[in-house]
Amino acid sequence: MSKLWQKGYSVNEQVERYEAAQNSVLDARLVRHDVWGNLAHIAMLRKIGILTPEEHQQLHEALCTILELNEQQQFTIQPSDEDVHTSIENFLAAKTGAAGKKIHMARSRNDQVLVDMRLYSKEQLHLVGQKLLALAHSLLIFARKYEEIPMPGYTHMQRAMLSSVGLWAGSFAESLLDDEKLLSASYELADQSPLGSAAGYGVPIGIDRQYVSDLLGFDHVQNNVIYVQNSRGKVEAAIVQALTQIMLDLSKLAQDTLLYTTVEYGFFRVPKELCTGSSIMPQKRNLGVMELVRARAQTMLAYQQQILGIITGLPSGYNMDYQETKLPFMEALDLVQDALDICKLVVDNITVNTERAVAACTFELFAADRAYDMAKEANMPFRDAYRIVGAEVIAQLERNIPFPVESQVQLLKRLQARSHLGASGNLGLEKTQQHLQQAKEAWAERENAFTQAIQLLVGGTFVEE
Amino acid sequence: MSKLWQKGYSVNEQVERYEAAQNSVLDARLVRHDVWGNLAHIAMLRKIGILTPEEHQQLHEALCTILELNEQQQFTIQPSDEDVHTSIENFLAAKTGAAGKKIHMARSRNDQVLVDMRLYSKEQLHLVGQKLLALAHSLLIFARKYEEIPMPGYTHMQRAMLSSVGLWAGSFAESLLDDEKLLSASYELADQSPLGSAAGYGVPIGIDRQYVSDLLGFDHVQNNVIYVQNSRGKVEAAIVQALTQIMLDLSKLAQDTLLYTTVEYGFFRVPKELCTGSSIMPQKRNLGVMELVRARAQTMLAYQQQILGIITGLPSGYNMDYQETKLPFMEALDLVQDALDICKLVVDNITVNTERAVAACTFELFAADRAYDMAKEANMPFRDAYRIVGAEVIAQLERNIPFPVESQVQLLKRLQARSHLGASGNLGLEKTQQHLQQAKEAWAERENAFTQAIQLLVGGTFVEE
Amino acid sequence: MSKLWQKGYSVNEQVERYEAAQNSVLDARLVRHDVWGNLAHIAMLRKIGILTPEEHQQLHEALCTILELNEQQQFTIQPSDEDVHTSIENFLAAKTGAAGKKIHMARSRNDQVLVDMRLYSKEQLHLVGQKLLALAHSLLIFARKYEEIPMPGYTHMQRAMLSSVGLWAGSFAESLLDDEKLLSASYELADQSPLGSAAGYGVPIGIDRQYVSDLLGFDHVQNNVIYVQNSRGKVEAAIVQALTQIMLDLSKLAQDTLLYTTVEYGFFRVPKELCTGSSIMPQKRNLGVMELVRARAQTMLAYQQQILGIITGLPSGYNMDYQETKLPFMEALDLVQDALDICKLVVDNITVNTERAVAACTFELFAADRAYDMAKEANMPFRDAYRIVGAEVIAQLERNIPFPVESQVQLLKRLQARSHLGASGNLGLEKTQQHLQQAKEAWAERENAFTQAIQLLVGGTFVEE
Amino acid sequence: MSKLWQKGYSVNEQVERYEAAQNSVLDARLVRHDVWGNLAHIAMLRKIGILTPEEHQQLHEALCTILELNEQQQFTIQPSDEDVHTSIENFLAAKTGAAGKKIHMARSRNDQVLVDMRLYSKEQLHLVGQKLLALAHSLLIFARKYEEIPMPGYTHMQRAMLSSVGLWAGSFAESLLDDEKLLSASYELADQSPLGSAAGYGVPIGIDRQYVSDLLGFDHVQNNVIYVQNSRGKVEAAIVQALTQIMLDLSKLAQDTLLYTTVEYGFFRVPKELCTGSSIMPQKRNLGVMELVRARAQTMLAYQQQILGIITGLPSGYNMDYQETKLPFMEALDLVQDALDICKLVVDNITVNTERAVAACTFELFAADRAYDMAKEANMPFRDAYRIVGAEVIAQLERNIPFPVESQVQLLKRLQARSHLGASGNLGLEKTQQHLQQAKEAWAERENAFTQAIQLLVGGTFVEE
Repeated sequence: MSKLWQKGYSVNEQVERYEAAQNSVLDARLVRHDVWGNLAHIAMLRKIGILTPEEHQQLHEALCTILELNEQQQFTIQPSDEDVHTSIENFLAAKTGAAGKKIHMARSRNDQVLVDMRLYSKEQLHLVGQKLLALAHSLLIFARKYEEIPMPGYTHMQRAMLSSVGLWAGSFAESLLDDEKLLSASYELADQSPLGSAAGYGVPIGIDRQYVSDLLGFDHVQNNVIYVQNSRGKVEAAIVQALTQIMLDLSKLAQDTLLYTTVEYGFFRVPKELCTGSSIMPQKRNLGVMELVRARAQTMLAYQQQILGIITGLPSGYNMDYQETKLPFMEALDLVQDALDICKLVVDNITVNTERAVAACTFELFAADRAYDMAKEANMPFRDAYRIVGAEVIAQLERNIPFPVESQVQLLKRLQARSHLGASGNLGLEKTQQHLQQAKEAWAERENAFTQAIQLLVGGTFVEE
Repeated sequence: MSKLWQKGYSVNEQVERYEAAQNSVLDARLVRHDVWGNLAHIAMLRKIGILTPEEHQQLHEALCTILELNEQQQFTIQPSDEDVHTSIENFLAAKTGAAGKKIHMARSRNDQVLVDMRLYSKEQLHLVGQKLLALAHSLLIFARKYEEIPMPGYTHMQRAMLSSVGLWAGSFAESLLDDEKLLSASYELADQSPLGSAAGYGVPIGIDRQYVSDLLGFDHVQNNVIYVQNSRGKVEAAIVQALTQIMLDLSKLAQDTLLYTTVEYGFFRVPKELCTGSSIMPQKRNLGVMELVRARAQTMLAYQQQILGIITGLPSGYNMDYQETKLPFMEALDLVQDALDICKLVVDNITVNTERAVAACTFELFAADRAYDMAKEANMPFRDAYRIVGAEVIAQLERNIPFPVESQVQLLKRLQARSHLGASGNLGLEKTQQHLQQAKEAWAERENAFTQAIQLLVGGTFVEE
Repeated sequence: MSKLWQKGYSVNEQVERYEAAQNSVLDARLVRHDVWGNLAHIAMLRKIGILTPEEHQQLHEALCTILELNEQQQFTIQPSDEDVHTSIENFLAAKTGAAGKKIHMARSRNDQVLVDMRLYSKEQLHLVGQKLLALAHSLLIFARKYEEIPMPGYTHMQRAMLSSVGLWAGSFAESLLDDEKLLSASYELADQSPLGSAAGYGVPIGIDRQYVSDLLGFDHVQNNVIYVQNSRGKVEAAIVQALTQIMLDLSKLAQDTLLYTTVEYGFFRVPKELCTGSSIMPQKRNLGVMELVRARAQTMLAYQQQILGIITGLPSGYNMDYQETKLPFMEALDLVQDALDICKLVVDNITVNTERAVAACTFELFAADRAYDMAKEANMPFRDAYRIVGAEVIAQLERNIPFPVESQVQLLKRLQARSHLGASGNLGLEKTQQHLQQAKEAWAERENAFTQAIQLLVGGTFVEE
Repeated sequence: MSKLWQKGYSVNEQVERYEAAQNSVLDARLVRHDVWGNLAHIAMLRKIGILTPEEHQQLHEALCTILELNEQQQFTIQPSDEDVHTSIENFLAAKTGAAGKKIHMARSRNDQVLVDMRLYSKEQLHLVGQKLLALAHSLLIFARKYEEIPMPGYTHMQRAMLSSVGLWAGSFAESLLDDEKLLSASYELADQSPLGSAAGYGVPIGIDRQYVSDLLGFDHVQNNVIYVQNSRGKVEAAIVQALTQIMLDLSKLAQDTLLYTTVEYGFFRVPKELCTGSSIMPQKRNLGVMELVRARAQTMLAYQQQILGIITGLPSGYNMDYQETKLPFMEALDLVQDALDICKLVVDNITVNTERAVAACTFELFAADRAYDMAKEANMPFRDAYRIVGAEVIAQLERNIPFPVESQVQLLKRLQARSHLGASGNLGLEKTQQHLQQAKEAWAERENAFTQAIQLLVGGTFVEE
């Protein structure tokens, strides 16, 4: 088929390949979204009298045919088509004749791709939200299960103070719930209808942007038509920024898990089915997936940089540079979902080696406790007690005497004595569970609203005759 | 003075310098915040019986003395003190004796620095919010003033369609208001009290974290004590991510302004007082500040990368790496405020060269209009009309005939004909103004709550005997 | 087929997918290189007596079969195979029985993938070198062709001083030649043989690393076996750093070309066959490829960040994180080659609109010349002359009188008067051409040495019986 | 004093502050270099007859006065002066009258700042080279000292194979020597004289660029005057890219050292004088400096991104954006030097806990050895032997029986058996030492050439009467 703007000469093939090679692959993911945008656009064109009811009906049916073909993976985008928009317009023109050639009235591919990306973003974020909350849920179950297992807490990568496996797991659940807030804020930016901005300067036709926005289930119309165009990449960046926060947490989870499963630490065990081996060392069990999570957190940072790097400093109005944000954006959404899934799998399968964890809770972890006790008992200022205890501990360190270990029962008492908000004796897991539940409901609501709008739109029952 | 953890030997000087060189400068900005954190902490220590009312009173007064000294820039942090926390504890010990040495009971510098950074963040974000809204306000005024001045709209850096100066300015105002939403979301993360997490594993003492949080005006206690530590850098990153969105907008504003003030475009003029000259070319008037805004947007991206790069992949628990996020974070907050101020100055001083703007609205901008007209008048499918008009325009381009220009009056009619939501004939400035007003009130409320809490805290009237 | 380390249980499918999904695609590019590495390895195993001449012969032939299959795109890597190394070992085991199962003696996939990447890097860099020099050559031809066409030189995006089209084009040629130096330095790092480092700690077998290195045409053996492993990603990063320098130049070329082809500047014209159109504005001719070059320079920066981000801070020894550097590295090499090709296409097809270029050389460009003249004629200090001329020019600017224009002949005289090294009257194109020629020869030599070694290796004639 | 381009009106103070705040601090580092550039420029102006011998003499002396004042830290740059160039021209004008006002003939601040940065870069790189080689030297001494101490080698952060402390240390020395090659390549780019490019378009005066270049000790004149300007930031980026490679190595050294000094690993001990303590846990000894090295490697990546981000996509010709590369560049040079120094201090002070290192060399490290033995003894294909040994080891792992340990003597034999190039029995330290020595000489030669040229220049004896 041909390009929408073709007018009697051929574009250099090298140019064509340079511009569209990626698009035909990426746009295959956007067929549904582009059809939905088309469905809303034609309903509006009918409403304002540019399409007759018959033309509208024809186009509506043809678009539903595309949905079906796409379902069966039989709707393909040729590189010579440039993009999904062209493929669909060409299909409609072939199928419906004049009606199909009317469909591009009052819009541009610039606002079309924007609506596709917004719908795609919303749909993907529903999934990200779900997976994030599923992992947080697994972490809470893990935290509850190992609430009473002591473990050293580290600072500067050195044993520092008494901690617990439950405290450790709970920390990630809460962190993810904070990420959820940032994710929601970025979702709001995506929940604006760009249609009607056309090439970025509107159209001299009395289109009804509110109607289109409502049909597609958007929260509101994104108003200023130049801003609509300038927000390409910007909204994507805002979403990816939220995703980097998630990956930041997962990178820490990965690093901890990698350390705690070494022979040296030995607090955690992971079933061999989750590990990979070595082609040369038969004994190896490597938790490769967590190395990859750690590495892919860096990849996410690179995506963030890539998108923002591409769009920063561009002048107003559509620039083809924007097209280059599509790939890192889509890959970022895939990356975070896979990482959330794999982390859930690992968390669900970790078992704790209580013996090793307890054995690691050596004497020096309680130096601060002793200083506190001394301060309280002798009514001595903390700083003085600290210095006395410090001298003792250093003497012991210098003598190289191994530190005495406490029993698990004693350690549990100590854990419970840390009873203030958020400490090992008072994890507040129910409260976190509640926050998780609220977030779950909020995302379910978003998804329902979206699904309902799309079902209505595709069903076509919204049109008052 | 001495380090808090000193116990009878000296640290290698090179090590000391490597670790603390930066701190003594940066921490000078945190004296007030650290005092506030101390005031809340001692009130709590009194409440739970660790400090006597007299000791509390002594310490409260000594802390207020520091506030006064700091006001007069007479409280300095020595490099040998390591940080602001040490300076203050040493000051208190010198001033109040035993009471001062009790103050570090039930806390750590790890949660102290966190509370300092949170209070600093909130204070700075109030300013960022204000300045952002002030610039948006200037843009709205500018948009209203030039609402009826036509200007070409560009895509791919080429003249594309009719636009207006008002449409251009309005787009930035709306973009900034979306940034404000992201800024608010990041503010929420900062609005959690970290105190009581101590070194990251809580304390075996019945401290009252909620009380401290309320005294400092935080929205809520950040619960899990490991998460509190792990959020160091993370919250800073969330804030800087919002700031990059602002700088992204300003970089576009800068790039547009630089283009529109060239001889080639000539749409905007800026008074010479805002320009810098050349040491060799007497005629030069360079809008250097906008080049710097453009460059500093990249610096902001680097800060974002730096903070996230430092913290990604770190294991749980405090790591000294976190300390390295302080400088880029503080500089990011300075950078965005200076950039917002300077952009406001430029926007407030731009004058529009209407003659040049009108003259640039050449014939080819209306090719799409003609295709629309043809489609409507001849009831011809848009795509067919597009191809006919296209052939005409190309013919004219090939003949190299200069395109005819329309009068300003005709152009204004065309601007007004773009009457749908967000187009040049329907900018929706009042709606934007309303959003701006709402945001202004939200930030004022935040600032008031903060200021009131701090005033109460410093006043000391909150303590029930 | 099965994994090399499989020992009686199955790996979780989700884990398998998470780890190997990418590999089977990327490794398809490495079949040849892995075969070459295998050929050298078996020759060495024969030399030290681990393989019999017959086994060696069998394996050599089987490996050549893979080369042929691969040539015909009939050698595929199954995801269940994990990687190219496994596919090949499995193929050899199936084809040659015991001999095939001996091949992994004294090596690991860790050094295998390293040798693949090094050979791939060298091969690709030969191409990058060629394309870079081809573009530089085109720029020199362009510079020579337009050596005498005046054009304004810009600073701060404002007209500054007299320049010429030739001077502009020559600047890019020289910049690329400096990049070539950095590229060569990175090539040196890649030109070290990693084989024999095995999993990173060598093997307790008397292997001959020098022999293998020579067979594969490497400059030398990379000595310390831990360093060999730790250089994974590091060498890739060094190469990508050189590539960012190339893209930096191309981004500038793109930005200049985009500006100079606007209606506002109008110095350059590009044939419509290199442009893309708009689906809504029939008149549009967008130089989209240059927008993409500009954007992809940012993508290159992101690749650089990604690779360095992934590897920075990793502990010594192989980590699976390294695997994640393969994709951005391969994409970076593709990206730069496509960009060099497309820039050459554009440079080869630009025509200069001399009329517009001359017309833009307005009076104010010569303010510094006038100050110089005044200084020389009146023997007046430059700073005084500068101030006098400055006052005149400003007066003229304020009166808004259009600046007088000089004739092309006068302008040419002025161009020629800039006769010092590297100025518009003394471009030094021959010298640059010489540098280009030297670089061309150096890259040809590298490529020849590589090709000869590989031919010998595949031919198998090197083995003394 | 006043700006060089001032012509009867004042620049807005906010603008002035926004542009020059940073400069007056940074430029304080460039006084010497700017004076040197001035000395060469005036010698050339005398040579071509623009300055009389008397004027030249006057200026030469005044410039030497500045050198002396600067030595005594008595030459200050006022913010109102904009930059070091202005301060110096103003000083000269005040001191020498007309001669001083002639000095800016045939140049611009654009090429002045370039020459300053090039001289500064060369000087700093001499230091970086020295410090890098000093650290490599320390590592070689360390490697030799602990050549025979066994230690586990890790892959995937899990114990993998036998390694040695010497092998570990040697790997870093070699890596740094590869970095040195990249550093040298970047040095070559800096070793080009930019003077005479003026504002980027040369001057209509017969200046002698080669003479100036020779006087300043540059390798050659950077030819094309536009390229000279466009290389601002580019050369800095090339240098910082080499520095990131160094920091990459140091980040690995830091991460390893942090792990090996934990209680869990315990291979290394660091004297308490190099550690910092905790304000709350008296027992803590944190190797904070290595955490900072790890963090600052990320800061270096951010500098690299910042510089490249600022300059990528800028149009040709000087843009004020370039000025923003000065700070990250200077900080990057400081950062790497401090990090190299601190790492040397740590390496020089590490002691090895042989007992712990030996004890960690557990049975499973030798599984591959056993497979090799079995393959050789039974003439069994490696892959079959691997599977048999693998089954044994897994059985043992499942039974949770602690692995037997070998004696240090046995381990040493095994180390020695790894006798091929670069393995633990054949470290090749002498060869590395030789490379180090060659590099040392190369850098010394560079530094001498530089110092001699500058001494001649300042001495003024070069001028033939």
